[in-house]
Amino acid sequence: MLPANLPDAVRDALLAPLVDHHCHGVRRDEVSRAQFELLITEGAAPAPPGTTHFDTPAGVAIRRWCAPVLDLEPHASPAVYLARRRELGAGEVNRRLLRAAGVVAFLVDTGLEEPDLLTASEMGRHGGAAADEIVRIEQIEQDVAEVAPLAVDYMDSLADELAARAARAVAFKSIIAYRHGLDFDPSRPSRGSVIAAANRRLADPKERLTDPVLLRHLLWAAVDVARDRGLPMQFHTGFGDPDVELHRADPALLTVFIRALQPLNVPVVLLHCYPFQRQAAYLANVYPHVYVDLGLTLTHTAAGGARVLEEMLELVPFHKQMFSSDCYGVAETCHLGALYFRRGLGGVLAGRIDEGEWSVSDAARVAHMIGSGNARRVYRL
Amino acid sequence: MLPANLPDAVRDALLAPLVDHHCHGVRRDEVSRAQFELLITEGAAPAPPGTTHFDTPAGVAIRRWCAPVLDLEPHASPAVYLARRRELGAGEVNRRLLRAAGVVAFLVDTGLEEPDLLTASEMGRHGGAAADEIVRIEQIEQDVAEVAPLAVDYMDSLADELAARAARAVAFKSIIAYRHGLDFDPSRPSRGSVIAAANRRLADPKERLTDPVLLRHLLWAAVDVARDRGLPMQFHTGFGDPDVELHRADPALLTVFIRALQPLNVPVVLLHCYPFQRQAAYLANVYPHVYVDLGLTLTHTAAGGARVLEEMLELVPFHKQMFSSDCYGVAETCHLGALYFRRGLGGVLAGRIDEGEWSVSDAARVAHMIGSGNARRVYRL
Amino acid sequence: MLPANLPDAVRDALLAPLVDHHCHGVRRDEVSRAQFELLITEGAAPAPPGTTHFDTPAGVAIRRWCAPVLDLEPHASPAVYLARRRELGAGEVNRRLLRAAGVVAFLVDTGLEEPDLLTASEMGRHGGAAADEIVRIEQIEQDVAEVAPLAVDYMDSLADELAARAARAVAFKSIIAYRHGLDFDPSRPSRGSVIAAANRRLADPKERLTDPVLLRHLLWAAVDVARDRGLPMQFHTGFGDPDVELHRADPALLTVFIRALQPLNVPVVLLHCYPFQRQAAYLANVYPHVYVDLGLTLTHTAAGGARVLEEMLELVPFHKQMFSSDCYGVAETCHLGALYFRRGLGGVLAGRIDEGEWSVSDAARVAHMIGSGNARRVYRL
Repeated sequence: MLPANLPDAVRDALLAPLVDHHCHGVRRDEVSRAQFELLITEGAAPAPPGTTHFDTPAGVAIRRWCAPVLDLEPHASPAVYLARRRELGAGEVNRRLLRAAGVVAFLVDTGLEEPDLLTASEMGRHGGAAADEIVRIEQIEQDVAEVAPLAVDYMDSLADELAARAARAVAFKSIIAYRHGLDFDPSRPSRGSVIAAANRRLADPKERLTDPVLLRHLLWAAVDVARDRGLPMQFHTGFGDPDVELHRADPALLTVFIRALQPLNVPVVLLHCYPFQRQAAYLANVYPHVYVDLGLTLTHTAAGGARVLEEMLELVPFHKQMFSSDCYGVAETCHLGALYFRRGLGGVLAGRIDEGEWSVSDAARVAHMIGSGNARRVYRL
Repeated sequence: MLPANLPDAVRDALLAPLVDHHCHGVRRDEVSRAQFELLITEGAAPAPPGTTHFDTPAGVAIRRWCAPVLDLEPHASPAVYLARRRELGAGEVNRRLLRAAGVVAFLVDTGLEEPDLLTASEMGRHGGAAADEIVRIEQIEQDVAEVAPLAVDYMDSLADELAARAARAVAFKSIIAYRHGLDFDPSRPSRGSVIAAANRRLADPKERLTDPVLLRHLLWAAVDVARDRGLPMQFHTGFGDPDVELHRADPALLTVFIRALQPLNVPVVLLHCYPFQRQAAYLANVYPHVYVDLGLTLTHTAAGGARVLEEMLELVPFHKQMFSSDCYGVAETCHLGALYFRRGLGGVLAGRIDEGEWSVSDAARVAHMIGSGNARRVYRL
Repeated sequence: MLPANLPDAVRDALLAPLVDHHCHGVRRDEVSRAQFELLITEGAAPAPPGTTHFDTPAGVAIRRWCAPVLDLEPHASPAVYLARRRELGAGEVNRRLLRAAGVVAFLVDTGLEEPDLLTASEMGRHGGAAADEIVRIEQIEQDVAEVAPLAVDYMDSLADELAARAARAVAFKSIIAYRHGLDFDPSRPSRGSVIAAANRRLADPKERLTDPVLLRHLLWAAVDVARDRGLPMQFHTGFGDPDVELHRADPALLTVFIRALQPLNVPVVLLHCYPFQRQAAYLANVYPHVYVDLGLTLTHTAAGGARVLEEMLELVPFHKQMFSSDCYGVAETCHLGALYFRRGLGGVLAGRIDEGEWSVSDAARVAHMIGSGNARRVYRL
């Protein structure tokens, strides 16, 4: 899995258990081929007639790297792979693939609220790891909106619920990139404008929140709690499912908001970032409270991921990058995320050492920092 | 031309004839050195005093790879190269270079209407290939505007002419990236706004169309025809001649428009894309009706093109990418487009196989899909 | 320092003295560890507790490549490195590192006006090189604003001072990317709007200029002088200190302004450009008066810089790229800028030759053009 020419110290550092600082649950039940295909793409539609989502970088990677974990030959066909998956059963598949990822702690975004997904503690149990919760703030808002009778209750309940959930969590997460784009007004909205918007919202609280004033209010309400409790705020940036407009998910759009958070000592964690990994690395380089990862980027770019990782490493301080698999739905995404992180970083480090750029001990130290050390520090694990 | 370490099956797949799904005619007549220099750059001005457009990646590539096709040594000087070109004559040069490209079918954008360019059928004849027509919708609009007496005639004639031309074509193409930018309002304009804009337009119909309402009307009128006839719509995106503002040619700007076309089953083909190939690949990944190519990118980035191709391959489904040379003006651009496609893809596939990521049969299959199979399916050739 | 497989002619061309066409002074005095750490990052804050700015690509590169210039082993620890720095003294350190850069002429942006920085002529003397001045136009405006009694004096004095400073300079430089962003209105502002804005400005002339009308007036006043005197205009683009919003520093945003300057024959030099080097290369490719460099990008991306350089070389004409170190504050930034330029370009050229793409003589010629020839022509040195 790792390059052959890696010194032992670097190899050991890369193979050490990872902290997966951002992931989702995987499904506890069997999935059909149609379901499986939808879970290995960020798209929301079946592949066009005559084609398959297995014909993607991630699809080929599953056949190459997950097949052996299920006792198959590498490059098994999709049909053989899925038959073996059914034969073993979802529980065994999840246990094998999650454990193969070599993760010591999962920090799980629990905001999806789909009952078929493993909970945070189940993720830990199946994966032989500890587990902690990350709270998705847009989900809290949804819960509050559905029960708040009046706008003023909405504001109070939101603050209370954020504080209550923060007490059991290691971070907040925002998906404002999906609900609006990162090109939001970075200032805190006035109380009057929030009350007005909340009144409109409460007329139809089952709708997904897209009002820019309330999204900003939610963000700033979460910042207040995060500051009090020393919690980092994670932000989805870059690519993802088809709800995103990619040019509006460039993390550079957060610059003025990031500056506003600097004196508050609230760490900002930019998730995924692709294809804006260089922009993210720049922000991590010049703002002391900004952190980055690549998340599902490495799973989906698969064999091409080393290049993406290298671009992130062009400018990122080594104490600012973290690992996450961003796994979701099927445990293959966890194994591949961890595998391509180790493989890609191993390739970059082997190159740095071969070219006489880095010492072996520096390379090993950086592998440790990015793989787990930074996350332990940032999330106080 | 191909990497030495390629397995035979992959080599064969790469050397198989290509479908060039987007190109232009090359000149039938002799060109001077000044003309030749302008035809090998996307710029519109001579190189500054004391410099030459041969001192570009494409210029060096012509001396390296086209010189031998004209019986010269690799790296022949520009003067020697152009002298040999004159000696052989335009007809012979075109035949040699177009055939060297190894193309089985040219899909030719006939919207330039320059009489010195080979027609679609001439391109086929010179290149030993079949040929079909792609209709540039902005050219149709120009033809209609110049003869329509009234705004209502303009609308009717436009619809009629689009339908008539579609009957003989395999696709529509839009250059709204040049005329406005891809940041246009994606909604269909109202009939009233179109009538008003058409009245303004008909006062000065010789002008190049830049009115945003009429550009959008044209686009939607073409969508209606494309839906009826099952034709794909090609869009220029990314770099090109100096008319483009590059940041307004990011294909991600098309996201909302792309979503609107999804239920209509009109394939959207993103052409060229550079330097936004990752954005394009993302769109192809999550929307089932989006396709991509790199077109003239590989000709102009030349020896650097493998990296660009690899970035496209980070996220693109293998059934979504196609080959085009986007050749124009001189047949060198056709040969180089095909050569760097094969060379670049060969390099990527060799790497995937060497690293143990892909099987030989998968690599060969992907080379076939991108080289010709996908285009045959999308354009129903 | 250079790849082992480089032909002698290319090696010689790479090792030849460079023209550093954009740099700043380095400090003449001793600096503390805290000061040193701030001078090796574009950030403005200390690294978070428990971390260090040495844990960056540039920090590792200093330990690797500058340590031997100070008689230390490669990979010396930060403490050892800084102790040796103090031992030698600032003068000796500056002389060693500036001379190690192998520069024949420094073109120095003198707009920072910090007395602890070496002047242009001192940079030349310490570095064993010639030195010329680049005038930062925003600094001139500051000087004029602080003494002009009335708006009309402001306009006259600005024009006079620009002309006076131009007489002793080889170029103008603008940092409008920091003061506003490159998304400014490219048209020349009306005299009335300038008078009105100048009246507001003169009420508080100590403030840093951010008024968009006056920034544009300044730019156009500089263009007038540059045209008369044949001076290039340098523009900061891309990453830099935390004042920049990265997405507003994309050089493509200058497109319409660049077109306006084309008939005036004023060369436009796009500095740094990262991560928009492809956009910059495109502009240099299609507009005859546009030039590019990578500046501090190579210092900060360090071991990752070869990839960035290769991306610039995908599309840039070879007569359009120049070298700069963009050094500032500590002489390490000069040595590393030159080193990674030579190392990175050497790697790209070795690759081009090995792949059979370029001839040795072309590679050597391109190295010479980018290293010094283009700058001699553009700045008439």
